[in-house]
Amino acid sequence: MNRKTALFLIHGWLMATALFAQNGVLVFQSDFGLKDGAVSAMKGVAVGVSPTLKIFDLTHDIPAYNIWEAAYRLLQTAPYYPEGTVFVSVCDPGVGTDRKSVVLLTQSGHYFVTPDNGTLTLIAEKLGIQEVREIDEAVNRLRNSTESYTFHGRDVYAYTGARLAAKVISLAQVGKKLPAEVWKIPYQKPVLENGVLKGTVPVLDVQYGNVWTNIPKLLFEQMGAKTGENLRIRIFNKNKRVFKGNVLFVNTFGESKEGGNVAYFNSLLNFSVAVNRGDFARKYKISSGPDWRVEISK
Amino acid sequence: MNRKTALFLIHGWLMATALFAQNGVLVFQSDFGLKDGAVSAMKGVAVGVSPTLKIFDLTHDIPAYNIWEAAYRLLQTAPYYPEGTVFVSVCDPGVGTDRKSVVLLTQSGHYFVTPDNGTLTLIAEKLGIQEVREIDEAVNRLRNSTESYTFHGRDVYAYTGARLAAKVISLAQVGKKLPAEVWKIPYQKPVLENGVLKGTVPVLDVQYGNVWTNIPKLLFEQMGAKTGENLRIRIFNKNKRVFKGNVLFVNTFGESKEGGNVAYFNSLLNFSVAVNRGDFARKYKISSGPDWRVEISK
Amino acid sequence: MNRKTALFLIHGWLMATALFAQNGVLVFQSDFGLKDGAVSAMKGVAVGVSPTLKIFDLTHDIPAYNIWEAAYRLLQTAPYYPEGTVFVSVCDPGVGTDRKSVVLLTQSGHYFVTPDNGTLTLIAEKLGIQEVREIDEAVNRLRNSTESYTFHGRDVYAYTGARLAAKVISLAQVGKKLPAEVWKIPYQKPVLENGVLKGTVPVLDVQYGNVWTNIPKLLFEQMGAKTGENLRIRIFNKNKRVFKGNVLFVNTFGESKEGGNVAYFNSLLNFSVAVNRGDFARKYKISSGPDWRVEISK
Repeated sequence: MNRKTALFLIHGWLMATALFAQNGVLVFQSDFGLKDGAVSAMKGVAVGVSPTLKIFDLTHDIPAYNIWEAAYRLLQTAPYYPEGTVFVSVCDPGVGTDRKSVVLLTQSGHYFVTPDNGTLTLIAEKLGIQEVREIDEAVNRLRNSTESYTFHGRDVYAYTGARLAAKVISLAQVGKKLPAEVWKIPYQKPVLENGVLKGTVPVLDVQYGNVWTNIPKLLFEQMGAKTGENLRIRIFNKNKRVFKGNVLFVNTFGESKEGGNVAYFNSLLNFSVAVNRGDFARKYKISSGPDWRVEISK
Repeated sequence: MNRKTALFLIHGWLMATALFAQNGVLVFQSDFGLKDGAVSAMKGVAVGVSPTLKIFDLTHDIPAYNIWEAAYRLLQTAPYYPEGTVFVSVCDPGVGTDRKSVVLLTQSGHYFVTPDNGTLTLIAEKLGIQEVREIDEAVNRLRNSTESYTFHGRDVYAYTGARLAAKVISLAQVGKKLPAEVWKIPYQKPVLENGVLKGTVPVLDVQYGNVWTNIPKLLFEQMGAKTGENLRIRIFNKNKRVFKGNVLFVNTFGESKEGGNVAYFNSLLNFSVAVNRGDFARKYKISSGPDWRVEISK
Repeated sequence: MNRKTALFLIHGWLMATALFAQNGVLVFQSDFGLKDGAVSAMKGVAVGVSPTLKIFDLTHDIPAYNIWEAAYRLLQTAPYYPEGTVFVSVCDPGVGTDRKSVVLLTQSGHYFVTPDNGTLTLIAEKLGIQEVREIDEAVNRLRNSTESYTFHGRDVYAYTGARLAAKVISLAQVGKKLPAEVWKIPYQKPVLENGVLKGTVPVLDVQYGNVWTNIPKLLFEQMGAKTGENLRIRIFNKNKRVFKGNVLFVNTFGESKEGGNVAYFNSLLNFSVAVNRGDFARKYKISSGPDWRVEISK
């Protein structure tokens, strides 16, 4: 390697380092809820690592053990945080099994500290995988915590995330490099087949009961539907049809009457269904996850 | 304009600017709940604007579309934050209708970024209107968000609030100046007529089930009641009487027996009714809002 | 006192001061919930005291007036925050009675601002009492709040906690020194008698429905049980037996089958009982507090 090449590589490495440098922002997600002290203990550990960290919550109301929803919440929010942000996500039904503890660095420069149990399914697809490392729990573990069998959230994930966010450790110091892949939950990807759009109900808009799909606006537009038209919509749980109806497609809820069913694009620009000022999911008993599919046609 | 006048005006402008300068504190309120990523996405946008902002929550558990309660929560808390604080409130049943997006600067030096749909009813009365500007959404909107029809909370309100709080933009850069008024929800103002105090139940003390009124201590004292006396209280939903009873008026709950009804002044120094260690609202099926009125006499 | 002694004393005082100096971290706990503005108003007061404070929540979902649970949440989290952290805990059924408002400094260097109503029972045992002072409410009270009878949380506790955390006042300026003791709630301490371990169910792991005890690993090990064995467990409410059964003792949930009862050590290294991916407390109608006792034998 000549001097020019070496300089070029060093330059590239410096740029990459600067590009993806941690920014001191640390975001927590879990299925712990906020009724007890688990989340606060994680934050205490983080503050103990560095009092200058900027600490935020994604949500702690992930339904217990619902990895799919944890995956979806990362997809919904992480892209809106600046690059260099470190996310700690702890939804871990397999604690004590052989799932690995990892840190994912995406091509967008976001860091994710989590058990590799499917939580990274959607964010890895969306933001791209730059590097995956396995957390070496022998060194990346809160001091005096070696006897604590069950609270990895605090002693490993919060501690490692905080040290990474505060630049106490680099990504390389997390542990050994793994192949650039994550464990993925299978689900129906959005497709347009014979004039029928197919997709999943990845998540509900829980506060309002709106039903979101994973069908993006660009794919939808290939079907050629226009606002003001009625669309034929069917929703399935596994192979059982749970909803069938014609629904008005609108730009904004203001274009429909109160209590009416509407189809629209949500804040992620994905196709969604709602009752104007009502609760579609409760009315028609719709839930979400990889078992819930939707079909749309004109 | 002579030199003295010019200096005087400049001096006044500098004083006003200093008086009301944004302080880097940003407070969010919404009806989004904390179960999904909507609130966190708003904070991500704010952190992206400036990592030095001090970001807080008022509440995100406003009942869906309940503008009155959003208005009341601002009244309950904003005066306790230092001047220069920027509040972003997103409770917006009319998204897509012709309600305007505005920033209100109060005479107390607090900023409110919100749809002008009644949310500002009470805080404008309490803190006074200094200036109102309409958000120019063509410039005050998160980049690449123009296709996002439905999440004004994140793309317009959070983004504008964060840029205002971080002094990236001034109040003038929000958009054109509007008349110094806000859209108001009609409700029964507190009055004393023929020995009867009349008012509204603006909100419940939800955690304890206490019923708060908008009748202030100073008006109440004109009726001449003393602690230790029983008061005649009637509560109405529209024109239907829902509660009628004699209630002991106390300084502190410690003066009454457990399970007994008590009348007292809450932390806003407004007349309130409670069951000592119980839930008055649930016991007597009382709710709140402009449709709920109260009458008190000796 | 000669010069050497004086220097020694001054040195000791400086060391103690440095050791326990407030670190600008302020943690709030209450039974106010997050649905209204009470917690946000407390934070507004704190930000008004100093915008540089690092403000966190422990939890605000303590069941109304449940002092025991407030005590337990402090025990669960405070040790994980760095020394110098100031905790404000407001769960105060006795507001208006003669319970004192105090600040406890523990031997570990943590500060607790709270009504002395039992809230400090467990943390005082765990971290040791260094000093107790009574809040002089004549001086440590938000300006213009003297007429506010009922919101001590905001006007006294949040205000005093924020001023202490921000070093606006020292511990001595809180008020007069009290004897080094706190008001304590009686409960069954963990013991091993005739081969039977006895203890309390201090709290549930509410998100998952796991039943935690106050029996520590070190005491448990004196009984000589090993993972993989079944343990005889009985749970009582006062003198009524609510649960009786043989439960598999495991290191991690992964060692048991889904739906099975398991005994394990929780993140505090205390003996606990759970249903693997289920809700033990709901299934067997177990609650927590000083009235709930547990007995374990081989």
